Amino acid sequence: MTFEDIRYTQQGSVATITFDRPASMNTARVQTHTELRAALDAADTDESVRAVIVTGEGRAFCGGTDISQGFQLPEGGDPASGRNIPPDVGGVTVLRLFRMRKPVIAAINGAAAGFGATFTLAMDTRIAAQGAKFAFPFTRRGICAESCSSWFLPRLVGMPAALDWMLSGRTFGADEALARGLVQELLAPEDLLPRAIEIAEEIATNCAPASVALNRRLLWQMLGAAHPAEAHMLESRGVAATLAGPDSAEGVASFREKRPPRFTGRVSDADFMDAWWPET
Amino acid sequence: MTFEDIRYTQQGSVATITFDRPASMNTARVQTHTELRAALDAADTDESVRAVIVTGEGRAFCGGTDISQGFQLPEGGDPASGRNIPPDVGGVTVLRLFRMRKPVIAAINGAAAGFGATFTLAMDTRIAAQGAKFAFPFTRRGICAESCSSWFLPRLVGMPAALDWMLSGRTFGADEALARGLVQELLAPEDLLPRAIEIAEEIATNCAPASVALNRRLLWQMLGAAHPAEAHMLESRGVAATLAGPDSAEGVASFREKRPPRFTGRVSDADFMDAWWPET
Amino acid sequence: MTFEDIRYTQQGSVATITFDRPASMNTARVQTHTELRAALDAADTDESVRAVIVTGEGRAFCGGTDISQGFQLPEGGDPASGRNIPPDVGGVTVLRLFRMRKPVIAAINGAAAGFGATFTLAMDTRIAAQGAKFAFPFTRRGICAESCSSWFLPRLVGMPAALDWMLSGRTFGADEALARGLVQELLAPEDLLPRAIEIAEEIATNCAPASVALNRRLLWQMLGAAHPAEAHMLESRGVAATLAGPDSAEGVASFREKRPPRFTGRVSDADFMDAWWPET
Repeated sequence: MTFEDIRYTQQGSVATITFDRPASMNTARVQTHTELRAALDAADTDESVRAVIVTGEGRAFCGGTDISQGFQLPEGGDPASGRNIPPDVGGVTVLRLFRMRKPVIAAINGAAAGFGATFTLAMDTRIAAQGAKFAFPFTRRGICAESCSSWFLPRLVGMPAALDWMLSGRTFGADEALARGLVQELLAPEDLLPRAIEIAEEIATNCAPASVALNRRLLWQMLGAAHPAEAHMLESRGVAATLAGPDSAEGVASFREKRPPRFTGRVSDADFMDAWWPET
Repeated sequence: MTFEDIRYTQQGSVATITFDRPASMNTARVQTHTELRAALDAADTDESVRAVIVTGEGRAFCGGTDISQGFQLPEGGDPASGRNIPPDVGGVTVLRLFRMRKPVIAAINGAAAGFGATFTLAMDTRIAAQGAKFAFPFTRRGICAESCSSWFLPRLVGMPAALDWMLSGRTFGADEALARGLVQELLAPEDLLPRAIEIAEEIATNCAPASVALNRRLLWQMLGAAHPAEAHMLESRGVAATLAGPDSAEGVASFREKRPPRFTGRVSDADFMDAWWPET
Repeated sequence: MTFEDIRYTQQGSVATITFDRPASMNTARVQTHTELRAALDAADTDESVRAVIVTGEGRAFCGGTDISQGFQLPEGGDPASGRNIPPDVGGVTVLRLFRMRKPVIAAINGAAAGFGATFTLAMDTRIAAQGAKFAFPFTRRGICAESCSSWFLPRLVGMPAALDWMLSGRTFGADEALARGLVQELLAPEDLLPRAIEIAEEIATNCAPASVALNRRLLWQMLGAAHPAEAHMLESRGVAATLAGPDSAEGVASFREKRPPRFTGRVSDADFMDAWWPET
């Protein structure tokens, strides 16, 4: 697939999406969002893709929304009632991420500010190069948090860190991001992509694709469930479906024979779960 | 009480449930679940029991579901709609834990995998022996997470750790479990049960039983409440009820007189809260 | 403004509320709650106030509910149905905090027990003096948690710490409060207020008031949202509204010109969000 603002490549079972406007700090314009969603669609429907890495070309990961012409987001409508309000484009992209059936790994090679930071929140893990910088600078620009970050950030790092970063809008370093749980690992710049690939391949090698899709979706969606009985209802369906499928027998056999599994199931074997949650 | 797969014992005000199939790594079959729920019922209704410890006989805590005959869980029904789906037996057991009126302490003496790990998530604290191992290996067996773990795990350890452990299915050690908050303390094997008893007895000695039952239930249930006003409504009822009961006067008197309390209330004094949440 | 149980002062854009009954360990009686809510109302409606600090006079921060005459909270009604139950006064005060449009910083100078601890949970950051002590002693007094703490505490520090502190009712020190995330920084007593002012002024100097109000409310309210699509809906409104307001242009201009911003917007510019959530 060919894009203008990003690159989409695949090696083995791992797809990589790379922000590719290094002369503009990889900032995101409306076209970038359209391309990101097309790339996520492609990775999600391609059965040969088992995990996705997102990274940036050059010094920055993604410097946020492109404001070289000022804010270009659409205005209008009534913010109190919501009538005629155009949807935040970052939120549209992040809700696409939320529905992915493959794990997504952020390999944060440099500055991640605004959308560059909020885009990573709905990914499944974030690792960063030493020297990366982070900012949620909305209050310093006089605007509102976007990309569903007001929902994701406290759920990832806890409310104290979320309030600190969001209310002050200050820039902070990779060490603080690691200490407060925003990123899970810090690496030397040259080790960043190899480690992202290692994480992706551990899942691709050992885990059944439909089971990964199912458990990934369950964890994200159950974050919003009021009572564990909701999880019980959906897990019971997932247990019944996967026991009836081909992968559970191979999972047990490979475990007993202490050998790598050869799963024959497909990601689409988990499609029954699409009926659990309406698309938004 | 006499069981086949577990032991149920009581010393003072502390009941202990011990997985007791050491020759089978204390794995859980359907009968084990029935016995666990009967033991939890017994501990919950016995006013002389003030706290419960769960541990394992021999080298393992609980090696998960018994798959010596392959997966024996019932299949069937329509996973998309949920029609005729048999309930996940682990979820039934964990929802019984969720409704307990006494604190439950996991004393994890060795391997805790699959149900052996997920069963502990609805307990009130988890302490482990050095050398204990943990795994949520569902994706490696080609199946779905169970025992409401998709709801509990992110709420206990945060989403990044939950996704890492659940999507990779990898085995990890007690040090990682401690660092990421899955267990609260690591101990030498011989110190594990004494420390569990110490935690149980601190509550039994100092705290009013009905107040413990009420506050335990509130914390677990409010984890699923959309707005703090829900907590305000229920806490207002709890405050009014406990001020009208016998324990609050003794709580104040013992505090002022700097002496241990002699609470006369019973766990059943908190039964009014059963009307707050329908049993599932 | 003149009060009896508290002091309300303002320096620059920072208002400070000080518990001022040092001879009674700054314990809170019904009148104290009335005064606290009046002071919060004052700070919230005064456009010149950009952040609020809460601290205590003398050795204690706030020793909890005044029980010198025993518990004086109203009793009555039916706790199962909620009929005729008087509202918990701490919850009324904390729900007022929850609706604030300005950041609130707890500068915990000494003992914070019961309401003295729970009152801080709905604040945006908590910093403490070395030597401060904390307790959620409800089970030791035979009563129920109050001030919506059953909702806030697990969301701030995680369920394991919340259960430990709430079920045991034990007193713990500032080091444990820091390690488990209840407080964000520990300071020498003489550095506590200066640091609180520094945190307040970083926001006051760099951030647009309406944007701070909006993002603060979003984070707290989205903590209770079931799905990120709810955040998407409200953020879309907030983005549209702030892009139409005066501060976003100044936010971009000051960023490009690498100079401090001169925001002309007012906190009341975010009043459209009051329609999003009914007052409780």
